Amino acid sequence: MQLKIALAQMEVAPGRPRANLSRMLSYLGKAKEQKADMIIFPELAIPGYLLGDLWEYEWFLRECEECGREMIGASAGIIAVFGNIAVDWEKYNKDGRVRKYNACFVAEGKKPAESPLPYPFYIKTALPNYRQFDDARHFHSSISLALELGRPPSDLIQPFKVTAKGKEISLACMICEDGWVDFYPVKPPLLLAKARPDIFINISSSPFSLGKTALRHGLFSGLAQKVAAPLLYLNHTGIQNNGKNIYTYDGASRAFAPSGDVALACPSFAEGLFFCRCDNGGLFPEGDASGEQPPEIAREICDAVVYGTKKFLEQCQIEKMAAGLSGGIDSAVAAALYTHILGKENVLLLNMPSRYNSPTTIDLAGRLAKNLGAHYASVPIGGSVDFTAKQIRSIRVNGRKLALSDFALENVQARDRSSRILAAAAAAFGGGFSCNANKSELTAGYGTFYGDLAGMLAPLGDLWKYQVYALGRYLNTDVFQAEKIPEGIFAITPSAELSAAQTVGTGGDPIYYPYHDYLFRAFVEKNLSPLEIALWYKEGELEEKIGCEKGLTGRLFPSRQDFFADLERWWLALGGLSIAKRIQAPPIVTVSDRAFGGSDRLATSYIL
Amino acid sequence: MQLKIALAQMEVAPGRPRANLSRMLSYLGKAKEQKADMIIFPELAIPGYLLGDLWEYEWFLRECEECGREMIGASAGIIAVFGNIAVDWEKYNKDGRVRKYNACFVAEGKKPAESPLPYPFYIKTALPNYRQFDDARHFHSSISLALELGRPPSDLIQPFKVTAKGKEISLACMICEDGWVDFYPVKPPLLLAKARPDIFINISSSPFSLGKTALRHGLFSGLAQKVAAPLLYLNHTGIQNNGKNIYTYDGASRAFAPSGDVALACPSFAEGLFFCRCDNGGLFPEGDASGEQPPEIAREICDAVVYGTKKFLEQCQIEKMAAGLSGGIDSAVAAALYTHILGKENVLLLNMPSRYNSPTTIDLAGRLAKNLGAHYASVPIGGSVDFTAKQIRSIRVNGRKLALSDFALENVQARDRSSRILAAAAAAFGGGFSCNANKSELTAGYGTFYGDLAGMLAPLGDLWKYQVYALGRYLNTDVFQAEKIPEGIFAITPSAELSAAQTVGTGGDPIYYPYHDYLFRAFVEKNLSPLEIALWYKEGELEEKIGCEKGLTGRLFPSRQDFFADLERWWLALGGLSIAKRIQAPPIVTVSDRAFGGSDRLATSYIL
Repeated sequence: MQLKIALAQMEVAPGRPRANLSRMLSYLGKAKEQKADMIIFPELAIPGYLLGDLWEYEWFLRECEECGREMIGASAGIIAVFGNIAVDWEKYNKDGRVRKYNACFVAEGKKPAESPLPYPFYIKTALPNYRQFDDARHFHSSISLALELGRPPSDLIQPFKVTAKGKEISLACMICEDGWVDFYPVKPPLLLAKARPDIFINISSSPFSLGKTALRHGLFSGLAQKVAAPLLYLNHTGIQNNGKNIYTYDGASRAFAPSGDVALACPSFAEGLFFCRCDNGGLFPEGDASGEQPPEIAREICDAVVYGTKKFLEQCQIEKMAAGLSGGIDSAVAAALYTHILGKENVLLLNMPSRYNSPTTIDLAGRLAKNLGAHYASVPIGGSVDFTAKQIRSIRVNGRKLALSDFALENVQARDRSSRILAAAAAAFGGGFSCNANKSELTAGYGTFYGDLAGMLAPLGDLWKYQVYALGRYLNTDVFQAEKIPEGIFAITPSAELSAAQTVGTGGDPIYYPYHDYLFRAFVEKNLSPLEIALWYKEGELEEKIGCEKGLTGRLFPSRQDFFADLERWWLALGGLSIAKRIQAPPIVTVSDRAFGGSDRLATSYIL
Repeated sequence: MQLKIALAQMEVAPGRPRANLSRMLSYLGKAKEQKADMIIFPELAIPGYLLGDLWEYEWFLRECEECGREMIGASAGIIAVFGNIAVDWEKYNKDGRVRKYNACFVAEGKKPAESPLPYPFYIKTALPNYRQFDDARHFHSSISLALELGRPPSDLIQPFKVTAKGKEISLACMICEDGWVDFYPVKPPLLLAKARPDIFINISSSPFSLGKTALRHGLFSGLAQKVAAPLLYLNHTGIQNNGKNIYTYDGASRAFAPSGDVALACPSFAEGLFFCRCDNGGLFPEGDASGEQPPEIAREICDAVVYGTKKFLEQCQIEKMAAGLSGGIDSAVAAALYTHILGKENVLLLNMPSRYNSPTTIDLAGRLAKNLGAHYASVPIGGSVDFTAKQIRSIRVNGRKLALSDFALENVQARDRSSRILAAAAAAFGGGFSCNANKSELTAGYGTFYGDLAGMLAPLGDLWKYQVYALGRYLNTDVFQAEKIPEGIFAITPSAELSAAQTVGTGGDPIYYPYHDYLFRAFVEKNLSPLEIALWYKEGELEEKIGCEKGLTGRLFPSRQDFFADLERWWLALGGLSIAKRIQAPPIVTVSDRAFGGSDRLATSYIL
């Protein structure tokens, strides 16, 4: 028997059940036109996944239920598998709120498919509750329900029976984390396999992070082999956010043959309906959706940042952006991104020089703006900064005038650029303005409140400086295929140019990125402490362990004392004021699995 | 047999195990001096509770373990009950991280007390996972462990045996939520009661919210009656935060006799060592810690806001604050708070007039500053705002100069005050600056990014406007016992004074607080939708249901159409841009159980 199966790698709009339903019905219609026997939609395709407390609103849950009923009603002549929230209005979650299940529905002939399950849907068993995942906060697992019913969990982890081309088929459905259960006591794939189902399905809402696509596919390929059956892995596209982090969803759905081989590879970051054929237990592609090579790292970064930025601006209905253009790499890459995404007509770039800005960077900024073709202007800050200093210095406290230090004046400059000029210019231009901070700066709190840390969005906020450089190079070579970002911008010493001591000609930034990028990454992404760093340093293993260039620490730090002073300085910089700054920072397009923002709760907690 | 029991209602410093241990050892010493037989410390007394991802750092966990061993080592001649994190380095949490239990240790004679439990500590059973509580994210419950061991949960919920004055005593220990188990399948108090223990103990880390103290004590009083034994409820003081919300801990520990009567009532928001006496199953106060009356609501608000603000500034090592003083109620109350907390010498108040500010408000601001005795200055913004407008209007896009709308100019004024003047003045003064936004403004997004929404702290951010007024009155009558906040400030129409159309003499704010305060509260704190509001309105029940003045909607809205237009307007204002504003808002001193910030996840998610 041959089955034609459609994978609806759709874009899910979080919190918009009606919009998602109409998209699903449109795909369902297309699948029927193509004579598919079955169509599969992602996890929580109707409500969306990262919804925060929207889960607690009754009117929202009722709307999702109604959309689910309409979806089941549309399943005439086709088997429809989809994720939705399921509510038992008679029962409670542990917080006293109404009982909610993250559910997989299987429908055919306008009815729920047959199964031995207590509800007409499968309940997600493994509820992730780490990083951005909050499943256990909102949903009740099949294990808790089994406990309540006094039955073994295996009773609640059973396949559905459906009929296609007159034959009964057994469908084993899992939801996302149900396939990632190394550390969970109950393992759905193994329990489901006992019933020897014909097809395994995993519907997911699995956000992208660097390197995760390969990891995910290795896992599910291995699972297909282990259960010796075809396995369809379906993920969606779009973006979802928790306020501080914008997560991209890459889709990248796959169909695995029982051998573990990829029969169908859907593209990354592109929505669409894809088909495969299940034939006597084998699995084959249908149509032209051919396999993809795993992307090189710079392309992976670029795809995710471009997609996340584009979709977020669309969601906010922002069509124009203003951004500062200092002549340095961060603002250059941001400007290039916005121009690529919004079109040069919709980008306003402002160079905002003070007496400390060098002709070199001013010239580089001008050349870049010209290369990009975006609107460009110079708005000097000297007059306003002097005026502010004068006003502040005229305030009397205990009969004496207030003094403004050089350091305070640096921050006045940064705020003058962002909160005074950029914010007003963006409003006049009819758009938002960008925060161009990178992850190294956010780690160390190297930036000014309401100054360079302000903006509606930080597209580079989850990229270490070396990744910003790599993205800049990739934009030139692969996206623009021209040297739009001038080579000089890659070559100059990074500097905020806020004082005579800190210019591209003199000191540059206090962060030495070729080393500190990697040190910060060890702190932030690998949870390492200075003690572990210090031990590696003593044993001569540090550079290898953290991934920076060999021999670098020897050149940087003449003595052990210098090394330890530097280590202590940046470890302390990670906490305190830099946490306060991250708390008020803009949303960050997220590419790592340890971004600052809502999911990194250390970063949003004052530990002082 | 008589037992003297010490309740250590200590201030817990989150993330600082050494500091907490030394505080505990000091209390332990005092308890021994007073010849106490037992001392009880709060839940997670060593590590603290709201620690975010700090729970994932191995070095931190090891430090807590070491402090716990030292605490056990100090238990010669006294029974010590205390909360700490317990780690099983051989096992895993579901996320693959190391196994962590939220544990209650009982030690005597430098050793863990005897019990039939699998570990030498009791494991928290009910793990709250809602609002600010993240227990299930970090800790493994006794139920999950029982599942893993193949034993009934009741095996893991057993009393300890200790010896005092030569007699064996059975101690039933619970941790916080273990006593709040209406919706939990496993109920520790009932399981523990089966062993007929001599004394029940609940160690807590239970943040304050309005009205919660009474709720908490009603619950535990009832529990003491139900189990017919003395029940000691111990909570700590201090503040903890999740980045966006500063939670106060009020302590307010209680000892309940088996009758449910309060034998000992420790004060709210005050640290200390308190004693009671357990005598033949009865429970009696020892010393002079007499019972407290439940506070009136304005005092409850004042106590919490003053405590939270004071402790947060201490934690941040901020001894001076600058704040705008417009002549309106919010800035007046904030100024009065800071002066009360920091002393008049450490507060700098700035009136920053434009041409739209009335002589009335300028005069009121001046009178208030004089009454408070704080530093005061007038820093006009006219010159800088005109200069900014001129600079922006000189930027050319497609050959045409940019236009700056009246609305955009209002925001320029707000940013000029906060990001240009206040931020710089605070730096020069040597302190932070205040965000004086109230909860109604935060709900509606009525405020300017980097303008009046900027600051290091929003002390009034969880207070509806009517609560701000009540706090202002209470400060005059009970705290200052003088009319420091002039009556005129309570009397004037609230207005941002940002345009000719919006002054105290003309229109005032678009929010009409006597009605919208209550409407917003229904949306935000009661999860109600416009549909429910509209139904109540149609049935004439709205005012009663939401709690505003009777007859108000009739006077406010000439027609049904007006009512519905207003309802739609503010429902829409709750989302979109106002969410974006809340995401970048400062930390809020939290008094309700539904504050904007980290625990209200709808407020930090863009649902657009």
